[in-house]
Amino acid sequence: MKIAVLGTGSVGPAVAAAFSGLGHDVVIGTRDPQATLARTGPGATGGPAFSQWHASHPQIGVVTLAEAAAAGDVVVNATNGTASLEALAAAGAENLAGKIVIDIANPLDFSKGFPPALNPVNDDSLGEQIQRAFPEAKVVKTLNTMTNSVMVDPMHVAGGDHTVFVSGNDAGAKGEVTQLLKALGHTDVLDLGDITTARGAEMILPLWLRIWGALGTGEFNFKVAR
Amino acid sequence: MKIAVLGTGSVGPAVAAAFSGLGHDVVIGTRDPQATLARTGPGATGGPAFSQWHASHPQIGVVTLAEAAAAGDVVVNATNGTASLEALAAAGAENLAGKIVIDIANPLDFSKGFPPALNPVNDDSLGEQIQRAFPEAKVVKTLNTMTNSVMVDPMHVAGGDHTVFVSGNDAGAKGEVTQLLKALGHTDVLDLGDITTARGAEMILPLWLRIWGALGTGEFNFKVAR
Repeated sequence: MKIAVLGTGSVGPAVAAAFSGLGHDVVIGTRDPQATLARTGPGATGGPAFSQWHASHPQIGVVTLAEAAAAGDVVVNATNGTASLEALAAAGAENLAGKIVIDIANPLDFSKGFPPALNPVNDDSLGEQIQRAFPEAKVVKTLNTMTNSVMVDPMHVAGGDHTVFVSGNDAGAKGEVTQLLKALGHTDVLDLGDITTARGAEMILPLWLRIWGALGTGEFNFKVAR
Repeated sequence: MKIAVLGTGSVGPAVAAAFSGLGHDVVIGTRDPQATLARTGPGATGGPAFSQWHASHPQIGVVTLAEAAAAGDVVVNATNGTASLEALAAAGAENLAGKIVIDIANPLDFSKGFPPALNPVNDDSLGEQIQRAFPEAKVVKTLNTMTNSVMVDPMHVAGGDHTVFVSGNDAGAKGEVTQLLKALGHTDVLDLGDITTARGAEMILPLWLRIWGALGTGEFNFKVAR
């Protein structure tokens, strides 16, 4: 499958590498590919510089947001949640139409420090905003409730015995995303319902951040015990 | 221990009965004890009428909010979250001063239908509001992330292998509440930090409600897999 991953922070490269490792044809989209490839400083969360990461993943093309979205059968939004609508607009509505858009971003606003606020919250969500802005895309919210190392390698936390949520209006799209999640190693994929249920999945982030603070690590995940 | 449970909806009686069963001296506080004891209709969530419930728990006194709070060494807020501040004011700041107030309520506003909105949300929480309104009380937020049957009998879901959170400013109070939670059967008590972390615990409710919708039952709980 041709998968376009938008975003070059800590999440995008992790997800791109994982899908590439599963045999998919992956490109990464970024606003300015030359600038991204020239980055030599450490990543946002202490990972390798993008240029260093790319040297070890040369099979993953680095192109503009629009080129990536045009190339992908599936488009993954791994951009900063507060800039996702802008990034997806740059990717182009025509390049998203009819495609599955997997939204794994969180609209966390750190402008007032820690803890960040969610915006939107409560009666709207980023997932819904994206679906409204790109009505011809099939938006599926997922994976946003865990850190990127757990997204792509769920088995290393509690033997993989935890839950990933999917929210979206299109049952077929959720089915395809569920298959991708299972290929990554996720065993408990829980369909919450339509895209409005993304509110719940996004609103777990304040708790996630406090658990991260209490445990001193992001290497955990929520399990719906039942 | 003398425990006062404020609230006569579905949660209050369940928690009161559980603590009574553990040998504590429990009273229930309500705005109008005569009216509460005269209730013969079914409970809000289909449980028995209060009068019927009380007939099978005659050892639990039913008194005014202020009488209950005055009698308790520990006060449990199990009132409707949107009316909790008013109910605690009726209980009396002087009757809460110096005591542990276990806040298990959620500020869910159903006035616009389902799904309800949280109010406050994001940059405040009911737990914090209560702590600010009653600065001499030791507020501990807990148990609000699960349905009442799981609160009082955690072992019947996944063998008890799931998590309960505590938030509060007073370490000693959290320690005492942790002992009460363990007596109920909770095995994984996770201290999130100070009372501001109640925001996270309350903001999981929108997800809880959607999982309830997806599973068709409230008989589940979150586990922090790690």
